[in-house]
Amino acid sequence: MSSVIPKTVNPDLQKERDAASFKTEEFAAWWAGGEEKLKFNRDIRTYLSKDFDLNELGQLWYKAHEDIFEASTKSAIDLAKKLRVLQEERNPGGNDYWPGLFDTPVTWGLIPGGNPFGVMYVMLVNALKAQCTDEQYEEFGSRIEKFQATGTYAQTELGHGTFLRGLEMRADYDPKTDEFVLNTPKITSYKWWPGGLGHSSNHCMVMAQLYIDNKSKGPHMFYVQVRDEETHEPLPGIHIGDIGKKMGFHGVNNGFLGMKNVRIPRTRMLMRHAQVHEGGKYVKSPANVLTYYAMVRTRCVVARNNALMLAAAATISTRYSSVRRQSPINPNEPEPQIIDHVTQQLKLFPEIAASVAYRLAGDYLWQLYDVTLEDINNGKYQRLPELHSLSCALKVLCSADSTSGVERLRLACGGHGYLSASNLCHIYGNATAACTYEGENTVLLLQIGRFLMKSWRASLSGATLAPTVSYLTEVQKNPEFGAWTGSWENLVKAMQYAAANKTRTAFKSLSKRLSVGQTEEEAANHTGIEFTQAAELHGRAFVFGSFVAEVTGPNAKKRSASLNRILELLLELYLVNETLKQLGHLLQFINLTDTDLSQLQDRLEHTLTKLRPEAVAIVDGFDFSDIQLNSALGSYDGNAYERIFDSALKNPLNQKSVPKSFHSYLKPFVKSNI
Amino acid sequence: MSSVIPKTVNPDLQKERDAASFKTEEFAAWWAGGEEKLKFNRDIRTYLSKDFDLNELGQLWYKAHEDIFEASTKSAIDLAKKLRVLQEERNPGGNDYWPGLFDTPVTWGLIPGGNPFGVMYVMLVNALKAQCTDEQYEEFGSRIEKFQATGTYAQTELGHGTFLRGLEMRADYDPKTDEFVLNTPKITSYKWWPGGLGHSSNHCMVMAQLYIDNKSKGPHMFYVQVRDEETHEPLPGIHIGDIGKKMGFHGVNNGFLGMKNVRIPRTRMLMRHAQVHEGGKYVKSPANVLTYYAMVRTRCVVARNNALMLAAAATISTRYSSVRRQSPINPNEPEPQIIDHVTQQLKLFPEIAASVAYRLAGDYLWQLYDVTLEDINNGKYQRLPELHSLSCALKVLCSADSTSGVERLRLACGGHGYLSASNLCHIYGNATAACTYEGENTVLLLQIGRFLMKSWRASLSGATLAPTVSYLTEVQKNPEFGAWTGSWENLVKAMQYAAANKTRTAFKSLSKRLSVGQTEEEAANHTGIEFTQAAELHGRAFVFGSFVAEVTGPNAKKRSASLNRILELLLELYLVNETLKQLGHLLQFINLTDTDLSQLQDRLEHTLTKLRPEAVAIVDGFDFSDIQLNSALGSYDGNAYERIFDSALKNPLNQKSVPKSFHSYLKPFVKSNI
Repeated sequence: MSSVIPKTVNPDLQKERDAASFKTEEFAAWWAGGEEKLKFNRDIRTYLSKDFDLNELGQLWYKAHEDIFEASTKSAIDLAKKLRVLQEERNPGGNDYWPGLFDTPVTWGLIPGGNPFGVMYVMLVNALKAQCTDEQYEEFGSRIEKFQATGTYAQTELGHGTFLRGLEMRADYDPKTDEFVLNTPKITSYKWWPGGLGHSSNHCMVMAQLYIDNKSKGPHMFYVQVRDEETHEPLPGIHIGDIGKKMGFHGVNNGFLGMKNVRIPRTRMLMRHAQVHEGGKYVKSPANVLTYYAMVRTRCVVARNNALMLAAAATISTRYSSVRRQSPINPNEPEPQIIDHVTQQLKLFPEIAASVAYRLAGDYLWQLYDVTLEDINNGKYQRLPELHSLSCALKVLCSADSTSGVERLRLACGGHGYLSASNLCHIYGNATAACTYEGENTVLLLQIGRFLMKSWRASLSGATLAPTVSYLTEVQKNPEFGAWTGSWENLVKAMQYAAANKTRTAFKSLSKRLSVGQTEEEAANHTGIEFTQAAELHGRAFVFGSFVAEVTGPNAKKRSASLNRILELLLELYLVNETLKQLGHLLQFINLTDTDLSQLQDRLEHTLTKLRPEAVAIVDGFDFSDIQLNSALGSYDGNAYERIFDSALKNPLNQKSVPKSFHSYLKPFVKSNI
Repeated sequence: MSSVIPKTVNPDLQKERDAASFKTEEFAAWWAGGEEKLKFNRDIRTYLSKDFDLNELGQLWYKAHEDIFEASTKSAIDLAKKLRVLQEERNPGGNDYWPGLFDTPVTWGLIPGGNPFGVMYVMLVNALKAQCTDEQYEEFGSRIEKFQATGTYAQTELGHGTFLRGLEMRADYDPKTDEFVLNTPKITSYKWWPGGLGHSSNHCMVMAQLYIDNKSKGPHMFYVQVRDEETHEPLPGIHIGDIGKKMGFHGVNNGFLGMKNVRIPRTRMLMRHAQVHEGGKYVKSPANVLTYYAMVRTRCVVARNNALMLAAAATISTRYSSVRRQSPINPNEPEPQIIDHVTQQLKLFPEIAASVAYRLAGDYLWQLYDVTLEDINNGKYQRLPELHSLSCALKVLCSADSTSGVERLRLACGGHGYLSASNLCHIYGNATAACTYEGENTVLLLQIGRFLMKSWRASLSGATLAPTVSYLTEVQKNPEFGAWTGSWENLVKAMQYAAANKTRTAFKSLSKRLSVGQTEEEAANHTGIEFTQAAELHGRAFVFGSFVAEVTGPNAKKRSASLNRILELLLELYLVNETLKQLGHLLQFINLTDTDLSQLQDRLEHTLTKLRPEAVAIVDGFDFSDIQLNSALGSYDGNAYERIFDSALKNPLNQKSVPKSFHSYLKPFVKSNI
C-alpha cells in the first residue's frame, strides 16, 4: 500500500496559522535567542537529520531492549560523525560543533532512544576538568574529551543514592605497591545507574570511600579502566553490565559495576584538590566552593531541558487539538476542533505558558550565576547558599510541573495520546526522571526548607538577608498583606507573602518541637511537610518574579508590540492560573473577597479565549522539527490520522497476516471447546 | 552465578510485621469479603501460578512488541486451560471458574502483558447477551461465551471516540439480497482500539450507522466474521491488524478494522431492541433504560480495578520503604528505614487510605445499583440520572487519583522505582488508561456538571432532589455553613458545602451567560471549568460519605476493635489529607481560623505517626501474591536489592560480554579520533 500521508497541510491547521495576530518567526527568534541563532539551529538540524525518514523513526519502539540499545549506539555515533564533519568544515581544531553540540537543545531528539554517551559529555568531562591535576587531565581526561576512549561518571550505588557519605565502595591504599585496591564488598555497594556504564564505557570515574591504614577519609574520586580498549572485554575483577529496562532513556545503557580487588596506580585518584602521597600521606581538600557552585549551573540545565520537553509536548497536543474534531458545542453546527472546548484550552495553554516560565526562570538564574561567579572569584561567598537553594527549588518545580504537564497534555489527546506513535509517553518517561536525578525532589525541598528556617531566624536577629529572600524580612516587619489589587506585581507579592507565612508557621512548629526537647534533626523531620510547602512556595515566587521581569523589563523594547502582547497573555495566564492552583495556601493568609475570586476566574477564562487564536502559532514558534517531535499526532502538516494509520501499518506484528501463536495456542484451545 | 536471593525474610520487614497492633489476617479477610473468600482466592491463585517462576516473570519487558503479544496469548490460553480444569473438577457444567474467573481481581496480574481476550469477556459477551435475540444468542453469541470462537467489541473509530453519533462506519441495507453492506469510507472510519481485535479475534461486534434507502437510522450493532476460523486469514474486504505499541496493555493486541463492501445477512444485525425486517422495514428500539443503566455497573468495575492497582503499588512502595535505609535523621544514629521520614509517610499512607476509600465507594455504589435495579424493574426510573452521574464521578476520581497515586508511589521509590523490574511503571501504564476509556474523564465531568445545574435549578423551583444530591437543597435553604467542628461528619458536610457552593457559582455564571444571549450549549462550554470543579467536589463528597458509612456503620460490630482502630486511622488520614488538598475550594466558602488549620495539620502528622507501625501489616492485608505484584522491589520477603540484582543479571543484553555495535560502530569511531 502506498503512503496515505497527504503532501499538503491539514486545512484546519493552516487556518490557525493564517489567523494568528503575530509573526511566528519573531517568536521563534526570541525563543532561540536571536535571529542568527534561530537560523543556525535550523541549518544544523537540517544537515544532521537529512537522512532520517520520519515515517520510519517510530519503529524503534517495537524492538527488543537489546536492539534499541544497539540502534541508539548507531544513532549516537552517526550524529557524532556528522558533527565532526561540520567541525572540520566550519571551524577546524575547535570544539563548538563536535562535541559542543552533541548533547544540547539543538540536537535534542536526534537520538530517539537516548544518548549512551550523554553522561560522558554532560558530566564526566566536566568532572575530570574539575578534579584532575593538569597532568592527569593531559594523560587520560583529554582522551575522553576527544572520544579516544569512552567513559562515564559512577557515583550512585544499588544501596545509596542521595546520601553520599553512606556510599560503600572502598579504595584502600596499599603502600607496598603504591596502589589503590578497589572493592564493592556487598551487592548494595555495586555502582548502579550511571548512563552508558553497561556496555558503552571502557573507562569510568568512580566515587569510593578512601581508606588509608584502614581509616576512612570519606568519599573521593578515582579513574579506573573497566574494559579492554581493543576487545571491549571486561578486565579482571570487573563485573559490569546493563541494569535493565526502564521507564525511559531506553537506549542509554545505564549500568552496574562491581569490583573485586581491582588495583589501580595511586596516581589514578583525582588529585586536584585532595591528595594521597607515596607512602600514604593524606592531604585534605581545601573547601572547594566552586565545585559546589557548579551544581547551580547543572540545575539550570535541568530546568532548560525539562522546559524544552514540556514545550515539545505542548506542540504535539496543541496541533492535534486543532485537527481533531469532536462533540458538537451547538447541536446544529459541525463538530468543532477540540481546541474550541474551554476545558481543553485549560489543559493546553497553561502548559505552553509554563514552558516559557521555566525557560525564563532558568535563563534568569543562569545570568545570576554568571554575575555571582565573579563575586565568588573575588572571595565573596555570601550569595552562595541563596543561589544554591534557589537552583534546587527551580529544579524541583520544573521537573515536577513539566512531568505532570506532559502527562496532562498526553491525556488531552484522548486515546491516541496513549500510542507510542504519539511520542508523548516517551517524552514523559524522560521528563519524569529529572524528579529523581541531580538530587531527589523531596530531599532538595527539605534542604531549601532548612535554608528558609535559617534565613528566618537570621532575619529575626537583625541580619540582612540576600535579595531573593529579603521578602521574609519585609513580612516580619509588615505582617499585613495590604491591599489586594491583582496586578502582576501584586500576585508576585502574594506568592512571596504565602511563602513567608508558611516559613513563619513552619518555624513556629519547629521551635515548639525543639522546646519540648526534640533534637534539631528530629524536629526537622517532624516539620518536614511544612518545610516542603514553604520551599515550594518560595520557588514559585521566584518563577513568578523572573517571568514578570522578562516581560515587563527592558527587553520588551526589543520586541514588537504584537509579540509583547502574546508574552503578556502567557504571563497573565501563568500567574492567574498558578495563583488559583495555590489558593489553598494563599487563602490561609490573605483574605480574598468573592469579587476578588470571581475576578481571577474571569481573568483565567478571558485569557484562554484571547490565546485561542494564537496557540498554534506560538507552539510553531518553539521551532521543533518533525524529526525531533517524532510524533504521528504533532507533525507540522497536521496529518495526524494518516500518520497514525501509516505507523500502525508498519508495525512488525502486521507484516504477517496470522501470528504464530494462533496455530500453537489459540486454535487448539478453541477447537477443544467445540 | 547461583541465585543471590536469600531464602529468608528481610529482618527489617519481619520486624514491621511483628510489631503491628492488629492481625493482618483479619484485615485480609475483611478486604477479600470474608474468610472463606480469602481462602478461596489464595487456593485458586496458588493453583493457577504453580508453574510460574517469579524470577523469570519480569523478563517479558525485554522482548519486542511482537514477542510480548505472542507470550501474552500463550499466558492467556494457559490460564484459561487451568480454569477449565478447575471447572471440571469442582463444578462440572458451571461457569463460575471458567470463564467466570478469567478476568477478575482473583486472577489479576496472572497475564503480565495483559489479556488479549479481556474485552471478549468483560464487554462482548455482555453486549451480545443484551443486544441479541434469543435465536441470535443461541446461534453465535453462545459460541463466543464458550470460547468456540473469538471476538471483540468494536465501537471507537480512528476519528471518533466519545461522540457516538459521529461514528462513520456504515451498514447499508440491500433489499435485493437481504444483506447489509459494511463500509469504512475513510481512514478516520476505521475501527481503532478494540482490545484483541488485531490478531486475536475471528468475529467482531461492530457499531455502524444503519442506512436504509440511504437514510440514516443512527448507530446500530452488527455481528461480523473477520477472519477464517480454520486459517485465521482475514476474510475478503477486511483490513485488520494491531494498532501498535502503547504505554501499557502491551500484550492486549488492540486493533484496527477497515471494511470494503463486506456483506452480512440481515439477521446479523443485533435485533433484540431495534429491527430491520426483510425488505427494509425498520422498527425503532423502545427506550432501553437497562442498557444505559448497565454502564453504572461497569464504572463500579473500573473503580474496583483501579483501587486494586493503587493497592498493589502501595504494597510495593511500602515494603520497599521499610527495607531501604537512607539519610540519617540523627547524625549519630544509623541510617533509618526511609519509611521513618515523615515526608515519605505522606507519600505512602494516603495512597493506602485512598485504595480503601475507592474500593469502599465502588462497593457502596454497587449495592445502591442492585437496590435501585429492583426499582427500575418496577418502572421507577427516578434515581437513574443521579446514580449515573455518581458512577461517572466515581470513575473519574478513582481513575485520576489512582493514576497520580501510583506515580507518587513510584517516585517514592527513588531511582529504582524507574526500573521496569519494579513493575510500577507498568501498573501506571494500565491504570492511566482508565482516565480515557469508558468515557473520557473531562467529558464525564462536564456531564455531571450539567446534571448538577439541572438539580440546582429543579431544587430552586421546589422539586425534591434525589438523596445523594439533596445537600444542594439544604444549602439553598441554609446558606451558612455553621460551626466548624472538624469531626468526620463535619468534614463530609464541608465537602458537600463546597460542592453546593461551586454549583451555585457555576449556575450563576451560566445564567449570566444565558442572559446575554448565549445558547445553552455555548454558555455551558464557557462555564466548563466551573462545571468540572463542582462535579469533582460532588464526587469527593460521595467518597467521603461512603468511607465514613462503612467505618462507623453497622459493619463495625462484625470487626475486632484492633481492626476498627486501623480503619478509623485510614479514614481519619483520608479525610484530613483530602480536606487539606481541597483547601483552595473550601476556604472560598468556609472561614477557618488559624487554629482550625493548624489542628488539621496536627491531625495529619499525628495520624501518619500512628500509622507508621501498622503500614506493612496493612498492605500485607491487601493479600497480593508475589506473582501478581511481579516486582523486584515489593516481594513479600523484602529482598529488594537481591531481586533487582538478579533481574539485571538476567537481562538479555548481559548474556554477551560485548555488544555487536562495539565492533560495527563504536570502536571504528573511537579509533578514528586517535
